[in-house]
Amino acid sequence: MGTWNDYLEQNQPRFFAELLDFLRIPSISALSEHAADVQRAAEWVAARVTAAGMEHVQILATGGHPVVYADWLHAPGKPTVMIYGHFDVQPADPYDLWTSPPFAPEVREDRVYARGASDDKGNMLVPILAVEALLKSQGALPVNLKFFFEGQEEIGSPQLGDFIPKHTDLLACDMVLSSDGGQWSEEQPLVLVGLRGGCGVQIDVKAAKADLHSGMYGGMVQNPIHALTTIIAGLHAADGRVTVPGFYDQVRPLSAQDRERIAQVPFDAAAEKASLEVPGFFGEAGYTPRERIWARPTLEVNGIWGGFQGEGVKTVLPSEAHAKITCRLVADQNPTQIVELLIDHISRQVIPGVTVSVKPLAFRAYPYLVPEDEPGNVVVREILHEIYGVEPFYVRSGGSIPVCSLFQRHLGAYTASFGFALDDENIHSPDEFFRLSSFRKGQSAYCTLLERLGR
Amino acid sequence: MGTWNDYLEQNQPRFFAELLDFLRIPSISALSEHAADVQRAAEWVAARVTAAGMEHVQILATGGHPVVYADWLHAPGKPTVMIYGHFDVQPADPYDLWTSPPFAPEVREDRVYARGASDDKGNMLVPILAVEALLKSQGALPVNLKFFFEGQEEIGSPQLGDFIPKHTDLLACDMVLSSDGGQWSEEQPLVLVGLRGGCGVQIDVKAAKADLHSGMYGGMVQNPIHALTTIIAGLHAADGRVTVPGFYDQVRPLSAQDRERIAQVPFDAAAEKASLEVPGFFGEAGYTPRERIWARPTLEVNGIWGGFQGEGVKTVLPSEAHAKITCRLVADQNPTQIVELLIDHISRQVIPGVTVSVKPLAFRAYPYLVPEDEPGNVVVREILHEIYGVEPFYVRSGGSIPVCSLFQRHLGAYTASFGFALDDENIHSPDEFFRLSSFRKGQSAYCTLLERLGR
Ligand SMILES: [Zn+2]
Ligand SMILES: [Zn+2]
Repeated sequence: MGTWNDYLEQNQPRFFAELLDFLRIPSISALSEHAADVQRAAEWVAARVTAAGMEHVQILATGGHPVVYADWLHAPGKPTVMIYGHFDVQPADPYDLWTSPPFAPEVREDRVYARGASDDKGNMLVPILAVEALLKSQGALPVNLKFFFEGQEEIGSPQLGDFIPKHTDLLACDMVLSSDGGQWSEEQPLVLVGLRGGCGVQIDVKAAKADLHSGMYGGMVQNPIHALTTIIAGLHAADGRVTVPGFYDQVRPLSAQDRERIAQVPFDAAAEKASLEVPGFFGEAGYTPRERIWARPTLEVNGIWGGFQGEGVKTVLPSEAHAKITCRLVADQNPTQIVELLIDHISRQVIPGVTVSVKPLAFRAYPYLVPEDEPGNVVVREILHEIYGVEPFYVRSGGSIPVCSLFQRHLGAYTASFGFALDDENIHSPDEFFRLSSFRKGQSAYCTLLERLGR
Repeated sequence: MGTWNDYLEQNQPRFFAELLDFLRIPSISALSEHAADVQRAAEWVAARVTAAGMEHVQILATGGHPVVYADWLHAPGKPTVMIYGHFDVQPADPYDLWTSPPFAPEVREDRVYARGASDDKGNMLVPILAVEALLKSQGALPVNLKFFFEGQEEIGSPQLGDFIPKHTDLLACDMVLSSDGGQWSEEQPLVLVGLRGGCGVQIDVKAAKADLHSGMYGGMVQNPIHALTTIIAGLHAADGRVTVPGFYDQVRPLSAQDRERIAQVPFDAAAEKASLEVPGFFGEAGYTPRERIWARPTLEVNGIWGGFQGEGVKTVLPSEAHAKITCRLVADQNPTQIVELLIDHISRQVIPGVTVSVKPLAFRAYPYLVPEDEPGNVVVREILHEIYGVEPFYVRSGGSIPVCSLFQRHLGAYTASFGFALDDENIHSPDEFFRLSSFRKGQSAYCTLLERLGR
């Protein structure tokens, strides 16, 4: 047997052909007419991890699109590492904006163009190939390993909130590595240390039983839009803080080190302003734009509506007005508790002449923050430093990846993001591509990472 | 020759048949496929006023539906009275809610059922018949008389704002009598002494060039819905007053007599609340519900929209938010000036991170208030008192009738409402009807009124 690196080198042409096969499956989770393709992708993955030498390979039903599980558990005394990724992809329309068809992968220079090339098929194939190289070259893995690949990430993993707590024995592990991620640039690595959570409510304000004539009733009957705008305007202070009592109580304050790490990540305010075409930034006083996005909770009205929205004039006094509100939450806020605070606060407001009701929205994600000394992230940082020759940025995301908080809450395992996507790779857009150099670099990086975790 | 009353008595069967003919014309001004029917109704009216003995009968183009003019000007030294009404009608759908078809008039008991029976064909035919009775029985009228009947009242008389100032010589008169009105009940007459005016603006708030992901940008980019709700919430104080500087400057205060007259008109708050299904009334502090509607200006948001309005959750940070606002105005507010105050006030607000623009809406009506001693109204009050045996209520309307302010501003003539519709006659609804007793009573009332005005 040679080294895992010899094995990788010898097998690159086959691996590349397999990548193209995988990319040809239009496993679009959002479109029900592609459900059979998502199933086909699961079967492809199951066969591929079997060929790699993994055991107990299973395609498991979730109630929605399936997941693929496999393990290799012959490293007693070593940690158990679970590798996560997803084999479903975003819809590909508009098709006419693609240079080559989204499910007929085409290589141009160092890049393979196809829907899912970067997000996440190219990235999730990488650790499978690394595991094969380790098993075929050394006959064993340096750690106990589990694969957990899902088919519904692009629609928000709706069934995993039930599936994971029901399969905690199967999925038990010490840490998770997620292939569904990327680096800052070709020269600059990153370590993902935080995600925001979220929750939401809808406000419904009702006045009269039907729309009224604003001449005949205006001034005597309360306008539900006035009531709603009063409620909403009162949810923020002029300095951008959320005024809901208790909203910030569980927020972990930013340490000097946190702020320093965030400040180290470049932010070109002028370029960002120009690209968004906003007259300026605005957010909570006392924080930089990055800190606001990465480390502070927010409350946003996502939509508001009531009365007449057409062309011209209709002098109506509307019967109803509505708003949808979602919050982004940071550690250690609890989405269920925040929903209660919102409902309490809004319901307690007394506005004459209307009834106000507040109900929770189906959006509840826990915030996620990795401790500095979490072993997975520590090793990921070391290896990225070795590969790139520079210290990684410590990055958070303002968005939510529900599966990371699910792993943490139900398995007690943190997730280290270890993927090689780059920002320019048009994920979720036409002409998505993945760099073949990243495909190759990732395979070695995963081998090194698993070896290091097994020490 | 007999008396006008003899003439009326002898001709009731013919008048009734003519009313049915008039009602058979589906002169729906809002539907372009009925434009020829509106024209046909104009021709019917022109022929009918000619038959009544009027002179200089003309169908005049307005750029939209036509108007019918006629006069009889042989009473030197007597006042010139112009009688107003409209021969267009509201749409009649839903047709299946009508007991008999809307344009196949049917008499049931004392009522004729048809679209336009009460609003305004039955009522506008009344003065034509009265004038015929006076001319045929006496050979002359007690005053100089003009008829001005329009075909676009139900769509807001859009062309009259141009037409009336261009025809001030033709339409010159000392007072206007409007057939387009009603009484409080079968036992209780009313004198209409005020109408509210109106104006409006649209507010458009813009943040980023496109909708953003609330996770990636929420907290850093201003939410245009937050900005808009802050602006709107600030337009009213908690006590219901409008906060726009100068808004109330030209408002004529309510005198003790005004308040007394308004208080004399019954208002059953509990019944009204139950019928509107509102939890309570709300309006400007210091005024009764009636005073707020009849004699105080208001500012109402007629519609608001921005962001996501669908089912479920979409965590979007919207790019835009919009609101349509109209005001109801009272004497002596000027709609053009109020629009300027609104634009000034809203534009002056500084909200970081968004651009706010405010533009006028195509709604501009002057408020209208008849002086106590206006001769037309004084005589109308006397005659109503004689007919009904009780003092009329002095009533205002919270709505706007643009043509009344046009007559006042361009002809210097006040309008006395002298019609016999009643509130239960389903105007603008299925099964509209007019009482044949009102049809007959109105003819005598108009003869008496014209005689009295000629004294
Ligand atoms: Zn992904
Ligand atoms: Zn009318």
